[in-house]
Amino acid sequence: MKLDIALLAGDGIGPEVIDQAVKVCDAIATKYKHEISWKPALTGAAAIDAVGEPYPDDTHEVCANADAVLFGAIGHPRFDNDPSAKVRPEQGLLKMRQKLGLFANVRPTFTFPSLIDKSPLKRERIEGTDLIILRELTGGVYFGERGRKDNGNTAFDTMTYTRAEIQRLAKKGFELALTRSKRLCCVDKANVLESSRLWRETVQAMEKDYPEVEVSYEFVDAVAMRLVQWPKAYDVIITENLFGDILTDEASVISGSMGLMPSASVGEKTKLYEPIHGSYPQAAGKDIANPLATVLSAAMLFEDFGLQQEADDIRRVVNKSLAEGIVTEDLSEDAKSYKTSEVGDWLASNV
Amino acid sequence: MKLDIALLAGDGIGPEVIDQAVKVCDAIATKYKHEISWKPALTGAAAIDAVGEPYPDDTHEVCANADAVLFGAIGHPRFDNDPSAKVRPEQGLLKMRQKLGLFANVRPTFTFPSLIDKSPLKRERIEGTDLIILRELTGGVYFGERGRKDNGNTAFDTMTYTRAEIQRLAKKGFELALTRSKRLCCVDKANVLESSRLWRETVQAMEKDYPEVEVSYEFVDAVAMRLVQWPKAYDVIITENLFGDILTDEASVISGSMGLMPSASVGEKTKLYEPIHGSYPQAAGKDIANPLATVLSAAMLFEDFGLQQEADDIRRVVNKSLAEGIVTEDLSEDAKSYKTSEVGDWLASNV
Ligand SMILES: CC(C)[C@H](C(=O)O)[C@@H](O)C(=O)O
Ligand SMILES: CC(C)[C@H](C(=O)O)[C@@H](O)C(=O)O
Repeated sequence: MKLDIALLAGDGIGPEVIDQAVKVCDAIATKYKHEISWKPALTGAAAIDAVGEPYPDDTHEVCANADAVLFGAIGHPRFDNDPSAKVRPEQGLLKMRQKLGLFANVRPTFTFPSLIDKSPLKRERIEGTDLIILRELTGGVYFGERGRKDNGNTAFDTMTYTRAEIQRLAKKGFELALTRSKRLCCVDKANVLESSRLWRETVQAMEKDYPEVEVSYEFVDAVAMRLVQWPKAYDVIITENLFGDILTDEASVISGSMGLMPSASVGEKTKLYEPIHGSYPQAAGKDIANPLATVLSAAMLFEDFGLQQEADDIRRVVNKSLAEGIVTEDLSEDAKSYKTSEVGDWLASNV
Repeated sequence: MKLDIALLAGDGIGPEVIDQAVKVCDAIATKYKHEISWKPALTGAAAIDAVGEPYPDDTHEVCANADAVLFGAIGHPRFDNDPSAKVRPEQGLLKMRQKLGLFANVRPTFTFPSLIDKSPLKRERIEGTDLIILRELTGGVYFGERGRKDNGNTAFDTMTYTRAEIQRLAKKGFELALTRSKRLCCVDKANVLESSRLWRETVQAMEKDYPEVEVSYEFVDAVAMRLVQWPKAYDVIITENLFGDILTDEASVISGSMGLMPSASVGEKTKLYEPIHGSYPQAAGKDIANPLATVLSAAMLFEDFGLQQEADDIRRVVNKSLAEGIVTEDLSEDAKSYKTSEVGDWLASNV
């Protein structure tokens, strides 16, 4: 297969972890005789510095024309505590999601047998966890009208959803549930929010089209609790953008290491793959960041193109690296740990 | 002291747990020669059934004229899956908070030595946790404009804050931090939301008035993660209404039992005390609900009236009941457990 993959390294540890995923993908391509053509492009604070814009049109062109996007991370602390900054890296992320139509963020949460004791949660609570959160990614309060009034003394953001947006995401949820244990949980705050009531009524109306799927409805506050109490109670969760942001990060605690959790963001056309850990500026440039989440995101990429063996190969070699302790310092039990680049090299030469 | 306390039992297990708190308060009153006059009033689904309104004016009168309010829970499942219901119990709760001006919800999270192994989190992560979340309770998306457009196919909610609302809550946070370890964490989503940017800039501007307090700013998604990873990293957290709703419920997992977590909601005048567990309809009427959260909420009440010894007494007897296993079934290790009413009787006769 011939694949054009847009390569958006972004900020912080983005470039370092992306490098390792590229090594692994190239090794897979060699092994299976695929041809990957990487198309690097600027994004985030890096793009602001270079061209004054966190998601430049050139970058969008590259992404829109690629078969898929592999993305590192966006964000830089120098913007975080400056509420008056005019241009922010995150705007690039949101613009990218919107312009590429990436309406569904797919975040699996699972445990690694060899890492289970790293979790802050007790083994018996999490062993066997296998859930997927489908987060709506191009609507809600992220994209509603916002602004100031009263000389800047009042601020507002609008959380808004259309029935069509909800249906589109929920459809993916129902379909995903059909391929798994056929349980779907819709998470909202329908006891307070009108947009949540639209979510609930829309999903309820779709139930009849998926008679095999057992649907439950839970409030976001209750789920924030139950997700760490009994993660095995969940299979597929669908939810709106902001709730998804919070719950997916919370869920990442289960696995014991954020550094391992991949994600995919999908739309009608483009698909984007990224680690969930973000730019992690404290570690940037030190060659210590864990590249596995990005490598596992690449596995999701291959899988989505029907290249199951390739995906399995990547997961196998990742598990092998964990079992043999070829890991970065965040995962190493003893004094011995490996650099980001060393882990990447090891994975690439073992696929 | 003479205290008029409005008694809002509400729905589900509300009446049962409230009964036990009343017993304990009466016993304290007898012991310390206080005079408590209980003023019962209707609220929630119970009030809808009786008078068609979840927070009737009569009830408001009772609360507004009382020295404090002791509140059970609100909510009934028959409203939850009916997005079209015109009147809902929760509206009563929101109206009550607004009309009584209860702008700050104070939720302590701590562990009980005898229960620490009930937590889904590992002992070493949580032992010694002692944090307080101050949730803004009368603003944000709970009270902004909401509605439908396009023949009901678009729904919106507005998250809105004024500088004054933020200052009022943050002031409480700074003051609370001064009485504790002097660390304050402001939780927002300032990388996306305009209202969060107003939060951040307002709190930043207040820092100079509290030079001793060390303030940090974190994004809500990161906190949803860190709160269960390293709860001991937090001392006082301030946050807006919806984030507070989610994070306080999540934090309740730390203690290992929601059934033990009290809260206070305070305003300029009225103060309201309630367990955080909600109406828990599955257990309603069975005399099995854990009354300790309500009893400990009453301890917060005494404390806020300067009656520290009374509060300490209640906490001591609660700890004693835990140590001696005089507990409801949710906490009992072995076959032997006690009814809600039995636990209440035991506590009252042991103060
Ligand atoms: C950086 C931020 C804008 C972003 C979000 O909130 O969507 C991030 O937290 C994520 O989850 O990808
Ligand atoms: C019942 C509901 C409206 C309420 C809220 O969201 O505030 C509850 O979850 C709470 O935290 O007191």
